[in-house]
Amino acid sequence: MTISIVKIGGNVIDNPENLQAFLMLFSKFPGTKILIHGGGVMASRFGESMGVMPQMKDGRRITDLETLQVVTMVYAGLINKQLVAKLQALNQNSLGFTGADANLIRSVKRPIKNIDYGYVGDVEEINSPFLELLLAEKIVPVICAITHDKTGQLLNTNADTIASEIATSLSNKHTVNLYFCFDRPGVLIDEKNDASLIPLINEDIFKELKDENVIHSGMIPKLDNAFMALNKGVNRVWLGLPENLLLAEKGKNAGTCIEKRRYDLY
Amino acid sequence: MTISIVKIGGNVIDNPENLQAFLMLFSKFPGTKILIHGGGVMASRFGESMGVMPQMKDGRRITDLETLQVVTMVYAGLINKQLVAKLQALNQNSLGFTGADANLIRSVKRPIKNIDYGYVGDVEEINSPFLELLLAEKIVPVICAITHDKTGQLLNTNADTIASEIATSLSNKHTVNLYFCFDRPGVLIDEKNDASLIPLINEDIFKELKDENVIHSGMIPKLDNAFMALNKGVNRVWLGLPENLLLAEKGKNAGTCIEKRRYDLY
Repeated sequence: MTISIVKIGGNVIDNPENLQAFLMLFSKFPGTKILIHGGGVMASRFGESMGVMPQMKDGRRITDLETLQVVTMVYAGLINKQLVAKLQALNQNSLGFTGADANLIRSVKRPIKNIDYGYVGDVEEINSPFLELLLAEKIVPVICAITHDKTGQLLNTNADTIASEIATSLSNKHTVNLYFCFDRPGVLIDEKNDASLIPLINEDIFKELKDENVIHSGMIPKLDNAFMALNKGVNRVWLGLPENLLLAEKGKNAGTCIEKRRYDLY
Repeated sequence: MTISIVKIGGNVIDNPENLQAFLMLFSKFPGTKILIHGGGVMASRFGESMGVMPQMKDGRRITDLETLQVVTMVYAGLINKQLVAKLQALNQNSLGFTGADANLIRSVKRPIKNIDYGYVGDVEEINSPFLELLLAEKIVPVICAITHDKTGQLLNTNADTIASEIATSLSNKHTVNLYFCFDRPGVLIDEKNDASLIPLINEDIFKELKDENVIHSGMIPKLDNAFMALNKGVNRVWLGLPENLLLAEKGKNAGTCIEKRRYDLY
């Protein structure tokens, strides 16, 4: 079957109107689908209200035990269950997940090298047969960025990575399209100019733009994830604004389509 | 099939050692099973740390919007996902639920009569076919006390009630046994004397003891729930300490067994 995996982040989740507009679009999105969400901004806000301040080290976010509690409450509790309830109202039979549920995403605590990231998990294994069973039942899985190590420890994991890993695990048997919604119209040559959108990018172009420092900071891990997914069998990756999701599904030019390296086509 | 439904409350959840001991027992509990949990004490503690104080009115707890956020975070996030992760470590393939997930428990916001309870839901409908599908897959559902109204609103619901409603919905097709774990050895004649345990109670005895004010306050809704379940087809209801759960399963005298009204036996 064809499976669409849609990832949303804080720009959609944090604003109730944006969220409702997105969920209306998502409910009209045809076929078999999975929703993956982050929620870091909301987690920081709730954490601060409980006196748990974001921990940073050399510019990287650290997940200590208290932060893990906060993200578990905010991602798996507040955000995930509001998404599920709102999708149910739109007749989307959704079911919320962390990676611990049905052992969906087993990860391993990131080893300490230069930085101790704390309770952060790197994905090891996806329970794709169970996902397939739910998809066959017309369930819409809604997956948050918490995983587990199968020895009782929950772990914080990057939501983009989860989207890519789930997409690749399902691409053995299915045609999988991966849609990353974020707060930009796609990959831009000039970050301040939406008209500088690159509608199509492949790994060779990515490498050039990275070398020229045109693409930098937050876009690099996003595109690394995208190419990782394509190289492991995902059919199509798209990056753009959530409101352009249905246009993207129809193959219209509204965002950045990411293709494999050119030589893979021969 | 025979399905065992086990409900736990704050006395198990709040203490990490008690929780681990209980989960070890629960993992040894044979056959098809479902875990239902509350968590009010932990929700109150986290709420207070966020400046959300428990709201009371005429001695009854009120769920305002802020309280609903807190219970959603604590029940569906923190507690539910820790239970699921710890059960996975014990090779119990658990999957956490609110009533919104897979439309498992649809409820209706309690109408305002003398008291406005706020965002509290009274159960209307259980999606038992989906539960049956999961149970057939050897999944252990772990269900928290949050429901939804199918129009996008999450609602706070009593965990004992959820246990009884799920038990009765499954009892049409299956033999369902319901185990309420709490902080007493069972129903006591003298609350301060554990030796005054009533090992067997039926609706006639309950009525007498209630009239004589031997059974009062918190025990009454618990037993009302139990008899409601029995009268709607549940096979067996038990009340007792979590550490006696395996004895109860073996039919040994360790807690209070609740039977139907005597005349139902003829």
